[in-house]
Amino acid sequence: MSNQLITPKTLSGFMELLPSEQMQFEKIRAVLEETYRLYGFYPLDTPVLESSDVLLAKAGGETEKQIYRFQKGDNDLTMRFDLTVPLAKYVAKNAGELAFPFRRYQIGKVYRGERAQRGRFREFYQSDIDIIGDGSLSIRNDAEMPSIIYTIFTKLGLDDFVIRINNRKILTGFYAMLGLSDRAAEIMRIVDKTDKIGREKVADELRELGVSEEQIGKILDLMSLKGTNSELLASLRAIPSENEQFCEGVDELEQVIAGIAAYGVPEKNYSIDLSIARGLDYYTGTVYETTLCRYPEIGSVCSGGRYDNLAGYYTNRKLPGVGISIGLTRLFFILSDRSCVSTAFTSPADLLVVPMTDDPEPAFAAGAAFRSGGIKTQVYLESGKLKSKLNYANRTGIPFVLFIGEDELASGKYTLKNMDTGEQISAEAEELIRVIAGYVRKKESVSVLTADRAEPAEG
Amino acid sequence: MSNQLITPKTLSGFMELLPSEQMQFEKIRAVLEETYRLYGFYPLDTPVLESSDVLLAKAGGETEKQIYRFQKGDNDLTMRFDLTVPLAKYVAKNAGELAFPFRRYQIGKVYRGERAQRGRFREFYQSDIDIIGDGSLSIRNDAEMPSIIYTIFTKLGLDDFVIRINNRKILTGFYAMLGLSDRAAEIMRIVDKTDKIGREKVADELRELGVSEEQIGKILDLMSLKGTNSELLASLRAIPSENEQFCEGVDELEQVIAGIAAYGVPEKNYSIDLSIARGLDYYTGTVYETTLCRYPEIGSVCSGGRYDNLAGYYTNRKLPGVGISIGLTRLFFILSDRSCVSTAFTSPADLLVVPMTDDPEPAFAAGAAFRSGGIKTQVYLESGKLKSKLNYANRTGIPFVLFIGEDELASGKYTLKNMDTGEQISAEAEELIRVIAGYVRKKESVSVLTADRAEPAEG
Repeated sequence: MSNQLITPKTLSGFMELLPSEQMQFEKIRAVLEETYRLYGFYPLDTPVLESSDVLLAKAGGETEKQIYRFQKGDNDLTMRFDLTVPLAKYVAKNAGELAFPFRRYQIGKVYRGERAQRGRFREFYQSDIDIIGDGSLSIRNDAEMPSIIYTIFTKLGLDDFVIRINNRKILTGFYAMLGLSDRAAEIMRIVDKTDKIGREKVADELRELGVSEEQIGKILDLMSLKGTNSELLASLRAIPSENEQFCEGVDELEQVIAGIAAYGVPEKNYSIDLSIARGLDYYTGTVYETTLCRYPEIGSVCSGGRYDNLAGYYTNRKLPGVGISIGLTRLFFILSDRSCVSTAFTSPADLLVVPMTDDPEPAFAAGAAFRSGGIKTQVYLESGKLKSKLNYANRTGIPFVLFIGEDELASGKYTLKNMDTGEQISAEAEELIRVIAGYVRKKESVSVLTADRAEPAEG
Repeated sequence: MSNQLITPKTLSGFMELLPSEQMQFEKIRAVLEETYRLYGFYPLDTPVLESSDVLLAKAGGETEKQIYRFQKGDNDLTMRFDLTVPLAKYVAKNAGELAFPFRRYQIGKVYRGERAQRGRFREFYQSDIDIIGDGSLSIRNDAEMPSIIYTIFTKLGLDDFVIRINNRKILTGFYAMLGLSDRAAEIMRIVDKTDKIGREKVADELRELGVSEEQIGKILDLMSLKGTNSELLASLRAIPSENEQFCEGVDELEQVIAGIAAYGVPEKNYSIDLSIARGLDYYTGTVYETTLCRYPEIGSVCSGGRYDNLAGYYTNRKLPGVGISIGLTRLFFILSDRSCVSTAFTSPADLLVVPMTDDPEPAFAAGAAFRSGGIKTQVYLESGKLKSKLNYANRTGIPFVLFIGEDELASGKYTLKNMDTGEQISAEAEELIRVIAGYVRKKESVSVLTADRAEPAEG
């Protein structure tokens, strides 16, 4: 056997973390999950595998190339490539059983056969929230989404970010005013690339589409409007228009901006940006993108928007919704890479109980007592020298070690060593639980992300 | 589009829960996760997809038929069929970076192309814990595993269960004493089926294997030994033997039983059972199975054991370990089916804020205030009649509704309605947070599983 070892490799494009990194990842995930729960979203868990005809109901050629699709027996199967199509299927399938508006979060892995390159993943977590209405859904939900994202990012320790907001009806209406309704979708896809390719190339692509210089000028002017949110709304109001869509878009945007303010989100963390359009045809109203101000080069870390009809491929029931998605794997990779994830959360336990006698029973009892006090506790069960036991605590970052030897058994008091300071105290369990719990509370108050404070690794 | 609707179906053998069921599932999952964390296990997350040569390093023909395997470009890929092989790969790959003993939990989906039938799943969660040593691992870890399972089952609300324990060295040694070493693995696989097929058929199959009547008698006699744990250990000690494996097995079993007692597990929840063997060659010492006494027909709901060498296919480094696994999806299915899962945990929020005026801002502010107090809070944002708003609270099971109308705005007090009792009280947020938090605490003290109290649905 030993002559024919198989290399234990992990596929490229598949993130697999070391234990300490996994702890950091889980901490971030927990903040997301707790916040979604606090806002009353249901958890949802859909299969990773679905029937290809269900998952690819609306997919085009580009999507098809990137998917993991295969046959198993008579089944044509596809691994989900996002969490939105499974949601559409779920809501259409179970509409009779759901209470609307249906609020759900899902943090799950999705699969895309992208070309492998650094920071691009083939298996990655998306963290989505959506609110689905039955027939209609108040625009106020479009204001709640960014406020939840604001809460999450702030809890994570981020401060220097902007949720950029637009409304596709404004763009659609504006292009209609220019007589370009027939090419509105293409124009939006081009305009959406401005951040990446720049205004010149956007103009070139619009020219190729047969858009006139005058029209191009007006399109670029609209995108470039600058100012505070109220100034921008005033500028939009000043555009003479009788186009219904345009006016509706401006009205909606105004309500969303007012709603976000009512939620108490600071003005620096959200702004109208008429240059964002989102590439997908899917969105029909409000659209969001979120930028970390220190790292504009990574693009949007959290995007979404309003859609008129979630599940038109599966049901005639009209199900409008609004959703927003965090690319969790990518966000973690980027922030880890820049050393922006706190190392405070890498230890699997807060206490290591070390028996110093042959009888493990007192150590088991101590372990149980500390766990009852809410302390994450390991009992070190291996034999060996004290040095190797302390070394284990050091390597795993466990901050406290509890010794149980003859003296401790005789006195009924334990000796607790703080591995950082080397300080030792001797006391009963109850007292020591307070000491450790105090340490844990302090640790928990540390922000998991420190993107705003750390120096950028590049640029 | 409306003429060609695609049926929104979910593949058979893939569990997809309704929101209230998903809440119940998540509650169970949370108990598992919290307990693993409390015992200082690292979380681990490995890819669902792996290279086929890595995942199938040790698989035989039977496994091959049941797996999801496919080509994508030049890659031969397989979806994981358990969490143990990925763990082996992970530990072999990262051995240099890990602190041993390496303790990890993983709750993840695995895939098996089994024939579809009720209660059999093709995608299902396994919930595994393992402790891996570098070169050696104390037998005391074999006692910790059942104590963790005891803690979990008890926290879930189960009481009437038995963790059955054996040691394969006893069986291997015993078969060697009978001169049957060459067929030990086959005998063990047959003997392991006794619960399912009965003693007669086991005897038949042993006969086919060429085992003599006298040998069969002795094998069945050993399996049938009954008594308390200490009586059984005494019976084993009374068997005259100089076989080293047998004696080692008895020694280990004795230590494990003593260890479990030291952990404070009640005697009724664990017992030596010489009839369990586990079918897999993989295990080399301690083996576990767990039975719900009310539902013996479902077989083991939690199984595992000790293995000498986790990752022999990937590395020459000797990595002994012990692990135990809960088939979470199946357990949930079985207990749901028997109405044994409490309905106390099905609501996505504890409070629904209902604005009674046109301005949503006070409702947003109230939502934020109650969330700050740790209350899971939704703000109802849709327009419509009060009745439909209350209906939403009823359908989702949200226990409290907070009204914000002109009176409330003028007085600075909110009106809180208890949806169960219909009782209404008027007070400031701080006071109401205490009321709701008290209700939530009481709810949280309800056991999520009630298998021991509910009447069995069948049998």
